[in-house]
Amino acid sequence: MRVNNRHFRTIWVNENDNRTIQIIDQRKLPHAFVIEDISTVEAMAVAIQEMHLRGAGLIGAAAGYGMYLAALEASAAKSFEDHLSKSANRIVSTRPTAVNLAWAVNRQLQEIKKGGTSDEKIAIALKTAHAIADEDAAYCKRIGEHGLALVKEIQKKKNGKRVNILTHCNAGWLAFVDYGSATAPIYAAFDNGIDVHVWVDETRPRNQGAKLTAWELQQHGVPHTVIADNTGGHLMQHGMVDLVVTGTDRTTFTGDVCNKIGTYLKALAAKDNNIPFYVALPSSSFDWKMRNGLTEIPIEERNAEEVKYMDGLCGGEVKEVLITPDRSPAANYGFDVTPARLVTGLITERGICEANEKSILNLFPENK
Amino acid sequence: MRVNNRHFRTIWVNENDNRTIQIIDQRKLPHAFVIEDISTVEAMAVAIQEMHLRGAGLIGAAAGYGMYLAALEASAAKSFEDHLSKSANRIVSTRPTAVNLAWAVNRQLQEIKKGGTSDEKIAIALKTAHAIADEDAAYCKRIGEHGLALVKEIQKKKNGKRVNILTHCNAGWLAFVDYGSATAPIYAAFDNGIDVHVWVDETRPRNQGAKLTAWELQQHGVPHTVIADNTGGHLMQHGMVDLVVTGTDRTTFTGDVCNKIGTYLKALAAKDNNIPFYVALPSSSFDWKMRNGLTEIPIEERNAEEVKYMDGLCGGEVKEVLITPDRSPAANYGFDVTPARLVTGLITERGICEANEKSILNLFPENK
Repeated sequence: MRVNNRHFRTIWVNENDNRTIQIIDQRKLPHAFVIEDISTVEAMAVAIQEMHLRGAGLIGAAAGYGMYLAALEASAAKSFEDHLSKSANRIVSTRPTAVNLAWAVNRQLQEIKKGGTSDEKIAIALKTAHAIADEDAAYCKRIGEHGLALVKEIQKKKNGKRVNILTHCNAGWLAFVDYGSATAPIYAAFDNGIDVHVWVDETRPRNQGAKLTAWELQQHGVPHTVIADNTGGHLMQHGMVDLVVTGTDRTTFTGDVCNKIGTYLKALAAKDNNIPFYVALPSSSFDWKMRNGLTEIPIEERNAEEVKYMDGLCGGEVKEVLITPDRSPAANYGFDVTPARLVTGLITERGICEANEKSILNLFPENK
Repeated sequence: MRVNNRHFRTIWVNENDNRTIQIIDQRKLPHAFVIEDISTVEAMAVAIQEMHLRGAGLIGAAAGYGMYLAALEASAAKSFEDHLSKSANRIVSTRPTAVNLAWAVNRQLQEIKKGGTSDEKIAIALKTAHAIADEDAAYCKRIGEHGLALVKEIQKKKNGKRVNILTHCNAGWLAFVDYGSATAPIYAAFDNGIDVHVWVDETRPRNQGAKLTAWELQQHGVPHTVIADNTGGHLMQHGMVDLVVTGTDRTTFTGDVCNKIGTYLKALAAKDNNIPFYVALPSSSFDWKMRNGLTEIPIEERNAEEVKYMDGLCGGEVKEVLITPDRSPAANYGFDVTPARLVTGLITERGICEANEKSILNLFPENK
């Protein structure tokens, strides 16, 4: 996607040094655009854990490239297999909720073991990492095409009037390799000349909406308005939202959607106001084993300081301010689960389906 | 209530100069405790509009004292009546949503006109302002007593285990003259030795929860945890909330509750999880004329900068940071309306009633 009118992905191999992965350091956005070099598994694990990069698809791609770095390191280690296995565990342990992480690491482990020599294994790991990233981009592009049809339908019902879409958190291209999941239909609609406007939930406590989604949309020229997370219900009550689209960190094959904390509240409001609530995801975000999202998906608890402090631009520098009483405790749950009954549909790379086992497995019969 | 173990109300007449009103400047909390002197109607109007003070009951009390200042000024003006009437309009215009404002101003106008001389009018205005403030405190105290019974019931059902109460925004003593509305049952329960814990919604964009409710509870020693507004749904899904209590800026006689933006989302989640959702209010917050909250109550739109910037403590000073891309627009709706169907009950100074016309008018038959 565009950054100052140049095309970028969120992760790539340094063109002058194929032992170095480059990423956009998302902690610095929207106030600075900084590219970070990553050359070790540990650095990649830290980048995932400390959220230099984040988002379902991008975490998967980062895990893929992380395993490539693991293979490079393993070839110099005492035991290739030991180092690879330790690296896999290290990467998977960084974020408990996102399913793409384990999915990408397992795919790499399956592929890498097909190689004979270390050099073969390294070559396979690089090829697989590229494949994971390329597939992610291709799938998101297709999600955009399927979602575009949905937006066109709504536009038709509104007699061509502006379509207002609400989204929560960042399921934009910054959360994937390119295009994004929830934003893919938005970019596709905008690029097709449809009059779209996006309500951007700021998404406390880490403000991925205010920082990342707003920045992405602005770079692409898509009309948008940042709102406090509290605002969506009021907008929906007053006919100011036509469609809600979010991403997901893990969706069960029964249609329960785990996504950024607060998504459930927007789904309830959409239901209460008869507004379609869609979740966009590449199939890598499905969990094919879990039946009950509410009881089975582990919910990451992050540091309370993320709630108590907020960073932003102050006098040209990024500064952090304390926004609660010093001694008040805070809690920081990263995700919640929206039960399938509140989800109108899922937009996948293979098309749109209902959020239930039958409809999902119809689209992805190989997981039956 | 307590501030550093000394008793304070939120508004009072300077004991050395009865032409000066003193308030706690709430913009400075929780990082500094600052008392502001207010000696003119215009200064009081600015204090209300710019939210040096805020909250349903306190706005009413401030309007009451503002009208006393108006009477003082009027006695030196060309026409007493003209100045009084202009001042009344100025005060009422400061905040469109809160009903207490117009209620207090009208009460003053009714009372003041009973006086003959300017001095009599001034004396009446002061007495009425005190009455409004004292009633507010007395009503909130009674709300606490009625709410205490509710908390005791829940505690009993939980076999004496900790009662977890979620609240949104600040309907604490800082929002009234003393005790608060939503917090009155909490303080009463805590003072009666009940094990209570409060989930404090930070309440974006102005963070009244993180700044004011957390500070109040901490000063009084009540266990609490600050959470992002997105979090309540998840907590309710997992049995971590036993009761939701909020305040209201205006409640129709049919039971529709207008309160800080985001309240509606919590009410939906409470309903979805079968958790009692109560609204605490003195009768001054009822609108006895409006039947449909959703279509009739004006919703204040505030400056978008309140969404884009956040202030907090940084290196010992309060600083403001920009948290969105510089050029991204933002919208700032101050309130939303929770339909009566989502409200379990209303806790008033006369007892608890259901959120419907019949039950409300049963408690307040003089408004039939």
